[in-house]
Amino acid sequence: MANIRDVARAAGVGIGTVSRALNDSGYVEAGKKEKIRRIAKELNYRPSELSRSFVQKKSGLVGIVLPDVSFPFYGAFLKYAELELNHIGYKTLVCNTLGVQKRVSDTLDLIEAGSLDGMIINTDVTREEIERMKGMPVVSFERVLAKEIPMVASDHIKGGQIAAKLLKENGCKNVMILGARFATKVHAENRIKECRRILEQSGIQVTAVEINGAFLSYPFIEEMISQYLDMYSRIDGIFTEDVEAYCCLMQAKKRGIYVPRDLKIVGYDGNEMTRMIDPQVTTIAQDVPLLARTCVEVLAKKIAKEKVDAHYYIPVKLLQGGTTV
Amino acid sequence: MANIRDVARAAGVGIGTVSRALNDSGYVEAGKKEKIRRIAKELNYRPSELSRSFVQKKSGLVGIVLPDVSFPFYGAFLKYAELELNHIGYKTLVCNTLGVQKRVSDTLDLIEAGSLDGMIINTDVTREEIERMKGMPVVSFERVLAKEIPMVASDHIKGGQIAAKLLKENGCKNVMILGARFATKVHAENRIKECRRILEQSGIQVTAVEINGAFLSYPFIEEMISQYLDMYSRIDGIFTEDVEAYCCLMQAKKRGIYVPRDLKIVGYDGNEMTRMIDPQVTTIAQDVPLLARTCVEVLAKKIAKEKVDAHYYIPVKLLQGGTTV
Repeated sequence: MANIRDVARAAGVGIGTVSRALNDSGYVEAGKKEKIRRIAKELNYRPSELSRSFVQKKSGLVGIVLPDVSFPFYGAFLKYAELELNHIGYKTLVCNTLGVQKRVSDTLDLIEAGSLDGMIINTDVTREEIERMKGMPVVSFERVLAKEIPMVASDHIKGGQIAAKLLKENGCKNVMILGARFATKVHAENRIKECRRILEQSGIQVTAVEINGAFLSYPFIEEMISQYLDMYSRIDGIFTEDVEAYCCLMQAKKRGIYVPRDLKIVGYDGNEMTRMIDPQVTTIAQDVPLLARTCVEVLAKKIAKEKVDAHYYIPVKLLQGGTTV
Repeated sequence: MANIRDVARAAGVGIGTVSRALNDSGYVEAGKKEKIRRIAKELNYRPSELSRSFVQKKSGLVGIVLPDVSFPFYGAFLKYAELELNHIGYKTLVCNTLGVQKRVSDTLDLIEAGSLDGMIINTDVTREEIERMKGMPVVSFERVLAKEIPMVASDHIKGGQIAAKLLKENGCKNVMILGARFATKVHAENRIKECRRILEQSGIQVTAVEINGAFLSYPFIEEMISQYLDMYSRIDGIFTEDVEAYCCLMQAKKRGIYVPRDLKIVGYDGNEMTRMIDPQVTTIAQDVPLLARTCVEVLAKKIAKEKVDAHYYIPVKLLQGGTTV
């Protein structure tokens, strides 16, 4: 007797699609569903009761919960995650939390109700929400939640090392590290810690400042950076994220500070926009397509109740630009 | 006997939420559902068979279909549309088509299957898809599809007029208008037509060029703009979209063309990034929050089978920057 893999292979679709088609338990295009059912019949495939009871729970829908999809890094992540989910037969439900806590618990309710098969999350959450998530097919993108909840993140420790090396080589003596503070720990904090550790070891003065990450808006970021540059006027190097780096560039120009001669700026993320402005921003690029693909792959394993690792780290790389020498 | 509005008012929720709670036909948070059911009982509310058969079709889910959510304009639209939908009790399914036609028909299948209550769409579609959409709760954002399908778009004719006036006042004699070409007509074409008409009436030479809009990527846009600036080296004014405007700025600098002295650049969209780079891009801003809110309001009316207009036009406004004088 054929198994589900045989049917999937013969129909040229994924196993998930076969499950949904045969169980009417999620979305499959009408023509494709008919084809799969015909092939399953021809191959004499009969789903076991066990697999049937499992797949019948499926909605074919996965949630992606992010702080604000209009930010370049989150928008890019959503794009690639949606494409990867589509590739394995899932539709994507999206949720911008913008710091509104209720939106996370709403999404967890959907999973409990069987309206969502799983979730990829990168927002602030409460302790109670972490407890609920432990038993659910959830993947954390970037947030350090609990050992039961797998995390996918860039190798931020390496990112911090690259930044520190570059700022040292650029002769910086007084560096500001500007990051975002979140209520729930982000793995990205490690890039700041690591960069700071290395710089201080080398006798470089470090001022670490934090912007509240839950209410990010461009005018707010600009205002904060303006204030910091006034307060710490003697800094000669900045390590921050790309969006903040644009603001630093603009504020430096307003103050007659010449970049990179008087001030070196190292961004983080590698947004495409860093390549399109002049000077291009020297930045440490996260591999967004690979982050998204890994989140989706790990989530698919969680949904299938397969074993997963606690952490997945994705390499980062330096993109040289005109804000360092 | 109480009606559904009484229950909604007493429970402090929308009518849609009451429908879904009483019919188990979409997502309502567990605690809220219980409260609504209790209130409905207390008020002795009994849904009519008619309304029951109507609301039972509801999934509580709306689709937003866009070319690429990582582009700033689409990312911002998705953010606000998702928030507006959430506000009236709908969850958002998102789909990036990236020019893949099948993704639109997949979404239409979901509406037919009752898995989606409606759709907001801004991508290329086929004639067959337009025919299918005519009978469905669909709102077109920006695309000119059919008189049965309501369209929400910026007042691009006004946008074209503002750009033409500005380029004339800046003394331009030789203007390039750079737009994106799509397989399905976009209302934005009218900004190009209107700008061209006014400029030509004033004896200004106009070169209109088009980039294929279905396969937008930053390196591709940059390459095309580089080629156009080589081909038309005598132009002294450019009217284009914001992302293209950044590329124009960078390519101009590479060629030693001083902006705005030798070349005036007028962008379109009003992405937040235009305010964060130096020089700031003079741009004609679309009101993304209002575009999103209007799309959602019109869709809610379509879903409720209320009468809607054929077109909704949202005002645009000029943001002065340093790329014009």
